[in-house]
Amino acid sequence: MNQIHRVAIVGGNHGNELTGVYLVKKFQQYPHLIHRGSFETLSLLGNPKAIAARTRYIDTDLNRCFNQDKLSSSKISSYEELRAREIQQILQPENQKSVDTIIDLHTTTANMGLCIILGNWHPFLLKLAADLSAVNPLVKVYIHEQPQGSGFLRSLCDLGFAIEVGAVPQGILNAELFQKTEQLIYSVLDYFEDYNQGKYLPKNNTLTVYKSIGVIDYPRNEVGEIQAMIHPQLQFQDYEPLHPGDPIFLTFTGEEIFYQGNSPVYPIFINEAAYYEKGIAMHISEQQLIKIG
Amino acid sequence: MNQIHRVAIVGGNHGNELTGVYLVKKFQQYPHLIHRGSFETLSLLGNPKAIAARTRYIDTDLNRCFNQDKLSSSKISSYEELRAREIQQILQPENQKSVDTIIDLHTTTANMGLCIILGNWHPFLLKLAADLSAVNPLVKVYIHEQPQGSGFLRSLCDLGFAIEVGAVPQGILNAELFQKTEQLIYSVLDYFEDYNQGKYLPKNNTLTVYKSIGVIDYPRNEVGEIQAMIHPQLQFQDYEPLHPGDPIFLTFTGEEIFYQGNSPVYPIFINEAAYYEKGIAMHISEQQLIKIG
Repeated sequence: MNQIHRVAIVGGNHGNELTGVYLVKKFQQYPHLIHRGSFETLSLLGNPKAIAARTRYIDTDLNRCFNQDKLSSSKISSYEELRAREIQQILQPENQKSVDTIIDLHTTTANMGLCIILGNWHPFLLKLAADLSAVNPLVKVYIHEQPQGSGFLRSLCDLGFAIEVGAVPQGILNAELFQKTEQLIYSVLDYFEDYNQGKYLPKNNTLTVYKSIGVIDYPRNEVGEIQAMIHPQLQFQDYEPLHPGDPIFLTFTGEEIFYQGNSPVYPIFINEAAYYEKGIAMHISEQQLIKIG
Repeated sequence: MNQIHRVAIVGGNHGNELTGVYLVKKFQQYPHLIHRGSFETLSLLGNPKAIAARTRYIDTDLNRCFNQDKLSSSKISSYEELRAREIQQILQPENQKSVDTIIDLHTTTANMGLCIILGNWHPFLLKLAADLSAVNPLVKVYIHEQPQGSGFLRSLCDLGFAIEVGAVPQGILNAELFQKTEQLIYSVLDYFEDYNQGKYLPKNNTLTVYKSIGVIDYPRNEVGEIQAMIHPQLQFQDYEPLHPGDPIFLTFTGEEIFYQGNSPVYPIFINEAAYYEKGIAMHISEQQLIKIG
C-alpha cells in the first residue's frame, strides 16, 4: 500500500456527541497535537447546526447521507444532505488529493468502551486495530460491513473508520472518556507516522474482532410503540455472550423475555439512545479470533 | 391539614426523560395500579410534542413556564407556554376542585439515585420524604426553594414535588431505575392513602435533607464556550462533600481546577446534560439533619 498523505478527524457528525466536538475544537486550537511529520491532518466539525442545537441532527441523520446517490443527486434539500456534500468536497476535493483515511468520532449510551468500528476487512485497518488493542486492552474492534449505499461518513474511503466511545449520555462530557479517546487518536496518528516511516513493528499477530451479524429490535405493539426495556442483566454487558434462554428484555409489566436464538451471540450497542427511532435495541455479533498477516 | 382528594402524576414534562413517559403510559393502560380508595389520581403526559420528537422541549423548557405571569398573559405564543396553560387548566380547572399535589417525574444524567425535590418546607412534604427515605435508604431529599415565578410545574401547588432519578441518559430507559421509580410512586400513593385514613404512623422523626445554596457554572471563555469538564474525581459523586481545595473541573488541556469555597458543600445535579445551556455545571447544597414534628 502507498503512504498515508492526508488524514481527516471528524467530530460532531452527530451534534449531541460532545466528546468528538470538543476534541476537534481542541485540535483546531492546538494543531500541533495532531501534527505529524509525514502526513497532513485535517480536523473538522461534522454538523455545526446540530452541535449548536445540542441535537443529533436537524433534518436527518448526517451519518446516513454519505452515499453516492445522494451525494451526486440534484434533488437533495435537507440540511444534512447538503452538509454531507460539503464535507465530501472538503475531504475529496476535485482535482486535488483526497484524504486517505477518516477518523469519525462518536459516543454511545451503550457500554462499548473504546471501540474501533471498521466497515471492511482491509489488512491495513486490521493491523491498526491489532496494534491499538495491544497498546490498550480496553480497545475493542467491531466489524460492521456496510451494504452499498449505507451512507456512513467512514464509507467515503476504504480506510475510513469510526471510534465509538461509551457509555456516555448524549449532551455531556465525561472527562475520563474524553482523555482516553484523545490518547487513542494520538496512538492512531503515531501508527500512521510509523507506517509511513517504515518503522512499524507489529505488536500483535492475532486480533479478537466482533463481526456484525444483525440487529434486534425492541418488542413493539401494532403502532410501533416499544413494549419492553433492555433486561437489567443485559444492560451494560456489551461484548459479553448472550446465550439462548438468557433474559434479553423486560416488559413494562415486569415479564421477562428470553433470547430465542440457536447459538450465543455478542450484543453491542445495547440501549443506544439514538437507535430507539431506528428500530434497534442492540446489534448482535460473532466473536472471531483472526490472524493478522 | 385537610385530606388529599386529587393527585396528579405527570411524566414527560421533558420529552426525552423516558422513565416518566413510559410510567405514565403504563398507568394510563392499567389505571388500577394508581387507584387508591380515598382519593382520585390523574396521570398526564407533560409535553406530547417533545416526547414525539425525542427532545427535552420544542420551543422552550416547559418546566419553566408555570409562573402566574406567563399563565395569565395574553401574549404567550410558544408551544410550551400554551401547553403549560392547558396543563394548569387540567390540574386546576375553574369552578372545580384543583389537584392537591403534583408528582412530577424526571430523570437526570447526574448520579442522583431516587431524589425527592421539594420546593418548600411544608411539614406534610417533610413527613412524606422522611417516610420514603425510611422505607428506602436510596431515597434522598433535595430542598430547592424556588423564587417566585420560577415556573416549575411543581410550584402550581404547595404540595407539588418532583421525583428526579439518575444517572440515566436522555432518550433511554433503564429497566432497574424504571422499576425503582415505579415502586417509589406506589409508596407515595400508599402514604397519601394512610394519611387520609388516619392510619399514618411516622417511620422516622429525623430526616437528612440537602438544601440548595446555589449553582456553579463551567469555566467559560469570553463567548460563553465551556473550557473545562467535571473533574473525574467529582463525576457521579452527587451528595458527597466537596471540600475547599478538592478538584472540581478539568480543562480540555488537562489542568485541574480546585473548589475555592470556604467550607464544604454537597454538589447535586453534577453534569446534568440539560444544564449545559443553562449555565449550570452542578447545584450545590448544605446537608442538614432536621427533626420532623
